[in-house]
Amino acid sequence: MRYIFSDRISGLQPSAIREILKATADPSVISFAAGNPAPEAFPIDDVRRITADILESAPIAALQYSITEGYPALRTTLTDMLKKRYHIGNEHDGLLVVSGAQQGIDLATRCLLNEGDTVICEAPSFIGSLNCFRSYRANLVGVDMDQDGINLEKLEEALKNNPNARFIYLIPNFQNPSGITMSWEKRKAVYELAKRYGVLILEDNPYGDLRFSGEHIPAIKTLDTENIVLYCGSFSKILSPGMRVGFVCAHSDILAKMTVAKQCNDVHTTILSQMICHKFITECNLDAHIAKLQAIYRGKCKLMLDNIERCFHPSVAHTNPEGGLFIWCTLPQSTDMMQFCRTAAQNKVAVVPGSAFTTDESVVTTSFRMNFSTPTDDKIVEGCTILGKLTNELF
Amino acid sequence: MRYIFSDRISGLQPSAIREILKATADPSVISFAAGNPAPEAFPIDDVRRITADILESAPIAALQYSITEGYPALRTTLTDMLKKRYHIGNEHDGLLVVSGAQQGIDLATRCLLNEGDTVICEAPSFIGSLNCFRSYRANLVGVDMDQDGINLEKLEEALKNNPNARFIYLIPNFQNPSGITMSWEKRKAVYELAKRYGVLILEDNPYGDLRFSGEHIPAIKTLDTENIVLYCGSFSKILSPGMRVGFVCAHSDILAKMTVAKQCNDVHTTILSQMICHKFITECNLDAHIAKLQAIYRGKCKLMLDNIERCFHPSVAHTNPEGGLFIWCTLPQSTDMMQFCRTAAQNKVAVVPGSAFTTDESVVTTSFRMNFSTPTDDKIVEGCTILGKLTNELF
Repeated sequence: MRYIFSDRISGLQPSAIREILKATADPSVISFAAGNPAPEAFPIDDVRRITADILESAPIAALQYSITEGYPALRTTLTDMLKKRYHIGNEHDGLLVVSGAQQGIDLATRCLLNEGDTVICEAPSFIGSLNCFRSYRANLVGVDMDQDGINLEKLEEALKNNPNARFIYLIPNFQNPSGITMSWEKRKAVYELAKRYGVLILEDNPYGDLRFSGEHIPAIKTLDTENIVLYCGSFSKILSPGMRVGFVCAHSDILAKMTVAKQCNDVHTTILSQMICHKFITECNLDAHIAKLQAIYRGKCKLMLDNIERCFHPSVAHTNPEGGLFIWCTLPQSTDMMQFCRTAAQNKVAVVPGSAFTTDESVVTTSFRMNFSTPTDDKIVEGCTILGKLTNELF
Repeated sequence: MRYIFSDRISGLQPSAIREILKATADPSVISFAAGNPAPEAFPIDDVRRITADILESAPIAALQYSITEGYPALRTTLTDMLKKRYHIGNEHDGLLVVSGAQQGIDLATRCLLNEGDTVICEAPSFIGSLNCFRSYRANLVGVDMDQDGINLEKLEEALKNNPNARFIYLIPNFQNPSGITMSWEKRKAVYELAKRYGVLILEDNPYGDLRFSGEHIPAIKTLDTENIVLYCGSFSKILSPGMRVGFVCAHSDILAKMTVAKQCNDVHTTILSQMICHKFITECNLDAHIAKLQAIYRGKCKLMLDNIERCFHPSVAHTNPEGGLFIWCTLPQSTDMMQFCRTAAQNKVAVVPGSAFTTDESVVTTSFRMNFSTPTDDKIVEGCTILGKLTNELF
């Protein structure tokens, strides 16, 4: 039988980057292509103790069906934490626990977007979100970024040209893939534009706590007197991505629809994971843990940047992220980035070609993404040396 | 701001049954409305031991990102178990781990259905699946059931009248809500019809292992020489629904698309849950555990049936399920079932009105669903006594 697939999924073509990412399955390859937390970043002892406690004191609740909105104690704690720690959430907002921020983005899109509606996003942007938008047959409009975030003139132009824009998708902190952080001035300006054009903002903040230099900048959601911002957070980078726990803070009317969609999708998020997250933020020293993570990533980022500067041809530009997991490198114009990435993979170093992150894969880019959280320090040095040699052969 | 929601989600209206289900939040209400495993059905000691083992021996793997297809050891074990234990799966089939069978149904629909395409299903059928199909704007066509499963003549008529039918959704074992099991003869005939009309079958089998009387009937998937059946299984009823682990066995081409869709949706299923499921089926005595579950539900079902017969007015019909979690009761024609359910809720007993399970909520039904797995034995007796009194007042 020849299977007929839906238009929404047929439109998701396997991309040119697949062959390069395939290389990362080979254990002899040094992968700068992932986005995994460093193994030493997991609070293993805490998780062991907490999990044993839960299975001792509330085993039935940990195994039984739970409600779609999320584990009530976790929702209360998160709502409180968002208010006190980040000044996020007003009286119209609610909180929905989701199975990773990715599901928050998926459910939001499912509830807000008809086929053909426009999503405006940063260019480049996170491939997982772009593919999600594509799977709902969104019209993707990418807006170029400056060093301090999305370009405001081009954003306004996009809003003007796309009256069917439903939301602006933004990763304001240590953006994936660029590592760029949006300035406070720009956050305010973006909020004003969204308000003026009657468009929602989907603010994705998985890396917010992983700031290792510079000053904290409040989320766009802190400005949200009009309740036009859906804020997605996650436990993936501060506790564990394998647990699949994230959350969305947004107007209760929007969350009510997303809850209906979640009920159709996975009923509820793994309850044991939710209970572990709850105990972790209420019983463990979250501040000390986050400080530890920041120290780990500060060190790894600096090591990679030092080695890029030491090894790479000086014509290769790179961002200097103040947090997060990624550095964005750009080869000189007119070089063949895909060929560079392919050669790198042949030389046992994997990076992600920038074309993976463009809203339109046919757009030419000479950038590629490097991750510093996953590889060991030794591999960072070794991989940068190999890549550096290639850049020097190239130019 | 007035929020504009997508057509797909705006179409999901809060249904008339909500007010009755709300009653179940009141702890003084005896709920026959849920579908939860019995608390005594959870292998708590096994889960405690297994979980501690995993977090001792492989803590990083249990917390780190994993691959979308599922934990490789679990996939291998499940593939093997499906083949040996249930004769399911051929050389073209693969296995995708999903976050509960509900996600399998959701991803299958996402990949196979365009808006307006037809899904043929049993009438009545599981509300979670019906709402999922509705959320993709499916044209739902319900086919009446006989005592041995879907009516074949009406099924063929539905296939003839709906050339845009993409799949037939079936729960052949101890169907939710009816408790009906499809006979082997009928399974073969349904498979032949699907083959002849070039339509896929989505076979949902969450309760298959919970047979407490009668003879095992092989799944439709065992007939699947043409690879037209997507088979959904789940750990929710044999281990834990809170863990959210299910699986889909289907042709690899279909699973490849579903994997892309899952990547956009929740990236992967909670890895700790997957590891617990894997250890449970490889290291614990699955046969003994399933026999224990069957004994629990055999007892509870018999208790509820005995009390229905003892208390209910003889004009109330009911099914005699050979497994699963549900009994389907039908009031005499021309009675007001919704009024009965409302009165029951006021008298502190919750049942689910049959209209929740119709493909068209405007169709009049006098049936309601009763669950025997969740309430304690005492509550089964007490609740049936109250309901019985109401049926006797009614007629």
